[in-house]
Amino acid sequence: MSNVDASDSAAQGLTRLNRWKACGGFFEQYTHPSSSTNTAMRFTVYFPPQSAHKPVPVLYFLSGLTCTDENVVQKGFVQSQAAKRGLAVVCPDTSPRGAGVDGEDESWDFGTGAGFYVDATASKWSRHYNMFTYVTQELPAILHRHFPTALLPDARSICGHSMGGHGALVCAMKTFLSQGGPPYKSVSAFAPIAHPTACPWGQKAFGGYLEGDQGAGKAGEGWDATLLMEREGPFPFPLLVDQGTADTFLEGQLMPEALEKACASKGQDATIRRQDGYDHSYFFISTFMADHIDFHANALGLPRE
Amino acid sequence: MSNVDASDSAAQGLTRLNRWKACGGFFEQYTHPSSSTNTAMRFTVYFPPQSAHKPVPVLYFLSGLTCTDENVVQKGFVQSQAAKRGLAVVCPDTSPRGAGVDGEDESWDFGTGAGFYVDATASKWSRHYNMFTYVTQELPAILHRHFPTALLPDARSICGHSMGGHGALVCAMKTFLSQGGPPYKSVSAFAPIAHPTACPWGQKAFGGYLEGDQGAGKAGEGWDATLLMEREGPFPFPLLVDQGTADTFLEGQLMPEALEKACASKGQDATIRRQDGYDHSYFFISTFMADHIDFHANALGLPRE
Repeated sequence: MSNVDASDSAAQGLTRLNRWKACGGFFEQYTHPSSSTNTAMRFTVYFPPQSAHKPVPVLYFLSGLTCTDENVVQKGFVQSQAAKRGLAVVCPDTSPRGAGVDGEDESWDFGTGAGFYVDATASKWSRHYNMFTYVTQELPAILHRHFPTALLPDARSICGHSMGGHGALVCAMKTFLSQGGPPYKSVSAFAPIAHPTACPWGQKAFGGYLEGDQGAGKAGEGWDATLLMEREGPFPFPLLVDQGTADTFLEGQLMPEALEKACASKGQDATIRRQDGYDHSYFFISTFMADHIDFHANALGLPRE
Repeated sequence: MSNVDASDSAAQGLTRLNRWKACGGFFEQYTHPSSSTNTAMRFTVYFPPQSAHKPVPVLYFLSGLTCTDENVVQKGFVQSQAAKRGLAVVCPDTSPRGAGVDGEDESWDFGTGAGFYVDATASKWSRHYNMFTYVTQELPAILHRHFPTALLPDARSICGHSMGGHGALVCAMKTFLSQGGPPYKSVSAFAPIAHPTACPWGQKAFGGYLEGDQGAGKAGEGWDATLLMEREGPFPFPLLVDQGTADTFLEGQLMPEALEKACASKGQDATIRRQDGYDHSYFFISTFMADHIDFHANALGLPRE
């Protein structure tokens, strides 16, 4: 279904690990050496049936703390609606693995599995923990080089969950600010860590990865979606957020109300929904995944069913 | 959503372990002491939104080798269509756990995680490995005692995967033969081990669990879906089977052609489909799960959407 020949790809540094047919398309899992993280990285792509015949737009899905590329692939059920709309879905890993940085495996919410989609500036982390560059530049370039007849190079949206929901917001905002045009046509998030400079998860991550963020936390302000919205918004892409009301991380870590207020103050095109009784799990994500796929497919100009 | 009070249930031997909202309904996971297996047993139920207001029919889903109740709950995506049609889905575990039978943890395809949905007669296994009685009698009785306003007692269908696909076929056939009426209104299977007396998985399981099945294999004939169909068919319920053509277990273990031939020779109401390019995984199952939910919902008389 994809257009890569496994042996050719291996010669170019991309090795296929798995392939599974699902909803008429294929999930394909790859590993490759990364110049952003200086480690091997792994990702999985869902190629919808349409991508066998013509290149299709791409949705990036960034996962949360402790996850790999496989969580959303196994439990997010992206394939049903992505196959209907003709949207590819790219699922990166959440951090480098085995980088060998002292202390990277000590915490579940920092280091391995917790890259936070920033580019580290603290010397200890800066050689490897560069997930922002990996997700926004290196991985798209690799995909478009290896799958030119399956994936469109310039039709891209981004979504994510928790740490990855925040990552999606920041990837979209920062690439617009640095490039002067939006490579992402739309952004959505499930239960994002919406204001990380003000919550323990974000303070721990930014304080570790970012030089000068220990203490006052100034370095993290350029990586905080709520602050970016307050300072730089509105952005020229629509935003969709779903938040479960029974999410045990809602109080104290997620703070959707801060992002909501920032969006309102700037007139941002944003829909922030509260979903009654849902928690932080993939049962919540998979319940509303089709809505998010449709939101992005519409922004990317894909035909409605 | 369900009608059990957790503290009351614990007093009656049923303890709730988890509860997750999904597609407007709830997955609820329980453990209880079992009189069939003389161990604790675990199961998960999907209560669709409709079950909050009136009792609904129940689909049993029997999982395959190495699985627990959680595999189909996490990866089968039963909830989307079950919520639309108003069908509860009950997911039992695949064997007793920690029964203490010597050798039960030595093989991935025999003992723990591999109960094969038979009642063991070999003395070593017969105190614990009685998954047929557990699934067809004890568990339905427990459910209807604890959830009388959420689940209908007499509207029941059954489905399964691989070992559990075969289990579903045999549970439906044998309860019809023993009770003279069909407690299951319909039966379906993903990639069932369709003729176990003729394949290595089945020969190993029956040779271990069934007294007198070591050698000639006569004891297993009463637990083989293809032989039951040949000898006792047709049965008064419709049958749906999906089989992936890229399933690595198709040759040598699954033998859908034997069941197909038996159904044809008896005039059984059966649809046996080959699905091009699909393997044995939950990506295959989740792709066709909505079809199976609809098949059972129709047989159970639920209104179409």
